[in-house]
Amino acid sequence: MKNLPLAKVYQFLEPGPVVWLTTARKGRANVMTMSWHMMVEFEPPLVACVVSNADHSFAALRATKQCVIAIPAAHLAQKVVDVGNCSGRDVAKFEKFGLTPLKAARVAAPLVAECFANFECKVFDGRLVNKHNLFILEVVQAWTDPGQRHPKTIHHHGYGKFVVDGEAIRLKSRMR
Amino acid sequence: MKNLPLAKVYQFLEPGPVVWLTTARKGRANVMTMSWHMMVEFEPPLVACVVSNADHSFAALRATKQCVIAIPAAHLAQKVVDVGNCSGRDVAKFEKFGLTPLKAARVAAPLVAECFANFECKVFDGRLVNKHNLFILEVVQAWTDPGQRHPKTIHHHGYGKFVVDGEAIRLKSRMR
Repeated sequence: MKNLPLAKVYQFLEPGPVVWLTTARKGRANVMTMSWHMMVEFEPPLVACVVSNADHSFAALRATKQCVIAIPAAHLAQKVVDVGNCSGRDVAKFEKFGLTPLKAARVAAPLVAECFANFECKVFDGRLVNKHNLFILEVVQAWTDPGQRHPKTIHHHGYGKFVVDGEAIRLKSRMR
Repeated sequence: MKNLPLAKVYQFLEPGPVVWLTTARKGRANVMTMSWHMMVEFEPPLVACVVSNADHSFAALRATKQCVIAIPAAHLAQKVVDVGNCSGRDVAKFEKFGLTPLKAARVAAPLVAECFANFECKVFDGRLVNKHNLFILEVVQAWTDPGQRHPKTIHHHGYGKFVVDGEAIRLKSRMR
């Protein structure tokens, strides 16, 4: 994994890919599938996400205030669904689905070796957790896998329908 | 425009497309380009978005507590950039870029006739506006254009690079 400048994190999340969120609590790692996230600030990168309080990850994220956001490329789509269709209450998901946890630099939650981008996060603002299950995270360390070039991501349209990235277009723009 | 059940709104926003946000204040309509949005609740549909306080739309949204989120298909990409590259302070964007405002049912902000989906929104929770420019909106009325079938959307990767929707895949999933 290669260090990614924090100023570039938004370029990976702004397009709205399905991501994984990992946590670790009492030495036990977990991973969930998540699509409800958005950028809040460029730098330091702040990311908002919604984790249902019915999810096993919710308690771990609230208690430890740490997580990793990992982005799987399209070839991992079946694992994305598998991870999303069970709970860490019942299943050791890394083992069951053949995902490889890697030690992160600044948080206890693991990176996912199979993902092309991994962002280590700490909870920055928890004021909307109780009302909306909404966490604002700060990305404190970011990694990409130089071995995965131009990976295509997947975007969830509901009920297992995903749209894979298609062609890229470049338009002259002053927008960051 | 055809009425869309509110329970289906998330299927349009969860994939993370670039959208337009329209406002109307003192009889003057405006539109901005936005990528920082996410779902917060299925039903009633709540949507979070970040609108920079440097944007002309920020003051209108905060004052009127109403807006429309409109989703342009990929063929509108150049207009998406044009709208994003200027400010409503200086430009009457609907006129300048040939966009057609339509009267909404429940908010003063206009629908965009060229868009395949239009969601009328009211500010539901403004607690994070001052700190993070983050609004939580409730979608109170939703419309789609039956004339635009299976429209492809665009996703922003920064600096005018957009990725267009590619192939759709369907996997057996229990995830809503």
